Amino acid sequence: MGDVKQVLKFYQEQINSELDLFFDEKISRVKHISPHALDLMRCLKEFNLRDAKRIRPILLIFGYKCIKPSKNDSELVRAALAAELMESFLLVHDDIIDNDDFRRKKPTLHKVYEKKFEKFKDKADIGKSIALIGGDILATLGSEVLLSTKFKDNLKVKALARFNRVVVNTAFGQVLDVISELDPDISEKDIARIHELKTAKYTIEGPLHIGAILAGANNKQLNKLSAYAIPLGLAFQLQDDILGVFGDASRIGKPVGSDIREGKKTLLILKAMEKSNLKDRFTIKRALGSNSLTKVQIERVRDIIIKSGSLDYSKNLAKQLAERSKSEIKKSKFRSEGKQFLVGIADYIIGRDL
Amino acid sequence: MGDVKQVLKFYQEQINSELDLFFDEKISRVKHISPHALDLMRCLKEFNLRDAKRIRPILLIFGYKCIKPSKNDSELVRAALAAELMESFLLVHDDIIDNDDFRRKKPTLHKVYEKKFEKFKDKADIGKSIALIGGDILATLGSEVLLSTKFKDNLKVKALARFNRVVVNTAFGQVLDVISELDPDISEKDIARIHELKTAKYTIEGPLHIGAILAGANNKQLNKLSAYAIPLGLAFQLQDDILGVFGDASRIGKPVGSDIREGKKTLLILKAMEKSNLKDRFTIKRALGSNSLTKVQIERVRDIIIKSGSLDYSKNLAKQLAERSKSEIKKSKFRSEGKQFLVGIADYIIGRDL
Repeated sequence: MGDVKQVLKFYQEQINSELDLFFDEKISRVKHISPHALDLMRCLKEFNLRDAKRIRPILLIFGYKCIKPSKNDSELVRAALAAELMESFLLVHDDIIDNDDFRRKKPTLHKVYEKKFEKFKDKADIGKSIALIGGDILATLGSEVLLSTKFKDNLKVKALARFNRVVVNTAFGQVLDVISELDPDISEKDIARIHELKTAKYTIEGPLHIGAILAGANNKQLNKLSAYAIPLGLAFQLQDDILGVFGDASRIGKPVGSDIREGKKTLLILKAMEKSNLKDRFTIKRALGSNSLTKVQIERVRDIIIKSGSLDYSKNLAKQLAERSKSEIKKSKFRSEGKQFLVGIADYIIGRDL
Repeated sequence: MGDVKQVLKFYQEQINSELDLFFDEKISRVKHISPHALDLMRCLKEFNLRDAKRIRPILLIFGYKCIKPSKNDSELVRAALAAELMESFLLVHDDIIDNDDFRRKKPTLHKVYEKKFEKFKDKADIGKSIALIGGDILATLGSEVLLSTKFKDNLKVKALARFNRVVVNTAFGQVLDVISELDPDISEKDIARIHELKTAKYTIEGPLHIGAILAGANNKQLNKLSAYAIPLGLAFQLQDDILGVFGDASRIGKPVGSDIREGKKTLLILKAMEKSNLKDRFTIKRALGSNSLTKVQIERVRDIIIKSGSLDYSKNLAKQLAERSKSEIKKSKFRSEGKQFLVGIADYIIGRDL
C-alpha cells in the first residue's frame, strides 16, 4: 500500500506536468483564433489541472507495463493524457446534465462561464452552451493526444478504436443513469448495468486496455485484464456510492448528501429500501431528489442505511469483488511490475477514506 | 451543372445506403446493452437518415479523387460517413445551444426525447441531456467509422488528426457565434472569422482535406485545396444567410425568419444596418432576437435589406468569392475528375434556390 501511494504520487506529478505542457501548447496555438477561444482554452487547462487522483491515466500506464517494459516513459505518460482528457470531457458534460455547481472543489465549467456572463439574463444557458462546446473540445483533444504520440500507427489505430468504444459505452451508461432517475421501479440489475458501463468499463477496463493495446497486447491478455477490471470497477462504484452518502464534503469535493439530493438510486439505497419498514422506506423516498433536503433528513437516511444492514452489504460486496480482482491478476502471467501495482491499487481503491 | 446534380444524386444514394448499413450494425450491437440504448441508437439513425444534401461527405470523396482514382469506391464512401457523422454531431449540439425545435424538417433530437418523456415536469431538460449524450456518441462514431476503413494505418492516423482539427476549429467558431449574439458591437471582421471557422474550414476545406489525406496528398496539394475551399466556404455562408432570411421554409427546413428571431448578426444584417437610416436600423434592431417576431416585421426587415443594397452586396460578394475558388481549382494540377466536380459544385452552391 505504501508503495502504491508512492507510485501514484510519482505518476500524478508526471501527468500533471505533461498536462501543463500539453495545454500550454494548445493555448499558444489558439491565440490567433480569437480572445474568446484563448479564454476557453485557458479555462479548460485550469479545469484539467485541478487536484485529481489521475487513476485512469495511471491505469493506462500500468496496462502497458503489464505487457511490456516502457522504454520511454514520457511518451507513455503523454498517451495516458488521453484517459484524463476523456474523463474531463465526460465530467464537463455530466455536470451540465446533473446541473452541478462544483467539481473538484471548484465551480463546474458551466458555472465558470455563467459567472463570466453574469450580466446577461440567460447567463445560465450561456454557461451551459459554452461548457457543452468545451466538453466537445476536450473529447477531441483526448483523441488528438493519442494520435500525436510516437507509438506505431497500427497500435494507435487500435488504441483509438478502443478509446472510442469506451466513450460510447460510457455514454450509454450515462443515458441509463439519466433515465434511471426517472424510473421509480429501477432494479438492482439495471443499477449493476449502469455501474458496469459508467465505472467498471470506463474507469478501470478501458484505460488498462488502451495502455495494453499500445504495448501490443493480444485478445487473451485483454480478457485477463477485463477479469481483473470489471469486479474492481464495481467495487469502486460501491465505494463511491458509500462516499456519496457518508463521505466528508471537503474530501469528496461535492456537498454532503448530493447523491441523495440528486435522487441517485444506488445499491446502497435500493438495499436499504428493500430491508426497511414502510415508514423508513417513505423517509428515503421523500429525501431522494428533494431540492430542500435538510441535514436532519440526510442523517435519518444514513441511519436507515446502517440499521437496515445495507451499508454492511455494500461494504462486504465491495471487498469480495476486490478480492476476486486481485486473485485474477495474481494468477496471470503479466509482468510483475504491472501485477504488483494492480494488486496494490485494488487495495487502495477499497481502502479509500470514508 | 446537370452533371453535378447527377453526381450529387449518385453519391447521396451511396451515402444513404452506407449510413443505413452502418447504423443497422450499430443497432444490432447495442441491443444487449439495454432497451434505452437501442432506442437512442435508432433515433440517431433516423436523425442521420433524414433528407440532406450530403455535401460534406461528397466533398471528402472528391478530395480523394483530386489526388488519386478510387479503386474501391465503397471503402471511400464508408470513410466519407465520418464527415456526415461529424455534421450530425455538431447539429445535435448546436440545436441544443440554439434551443431549436426543428432540423431537416423534423423535430430536433432533444425535441424527440422531450416528447418521449413528456409526462415528466422537466421533460425539456431530459430531452437536452439525452441529446447532448447522443451528440457525443455521433462524434465518436465519426471517428470510429474512419478507423474502421481499410486505408493504410498511417493515412488513417493523419486523416483522423485532421478530422479532430476540424472539430476543434468548428467548436471555436461555435463559441464565437454564441458570444457574438450577446455582443451588440460585433464587427464585419468578427463575422468573417466565425464564417471561416464554422463554414469555410468545416464544410469545405475539412472534408476535402480528409479525403485528400486518405489519398496520400502532400502539403502543397492540401494548400491548393484550401485556396479553393476558403473563398467557396465564405460564399456558401453568405448564400446560407440569404436563405435564412429570404428562403422558403419548406425548402430550407426551418421556419421563415429564424435567423432574425435568433438575433444572428450576419453580414446581410450588418450591411443593412450600416447603409440604413436611424428608423430602419431601429426596425432591424427590434426584430433581431425577438421572441414575438411577426410576419409583418420579417417582411419589413427584408425590405430594408433589399433597399439598402445589402442583399445585392452579399450576392455579389458570394459570386466573386465563388469565381476566385473556381479559378484556383482550374489552374491546379489535380485529376480532372476532381477538378470538374469542384468547379461544378461551386456553381451549384452559389446557384441554390432562393
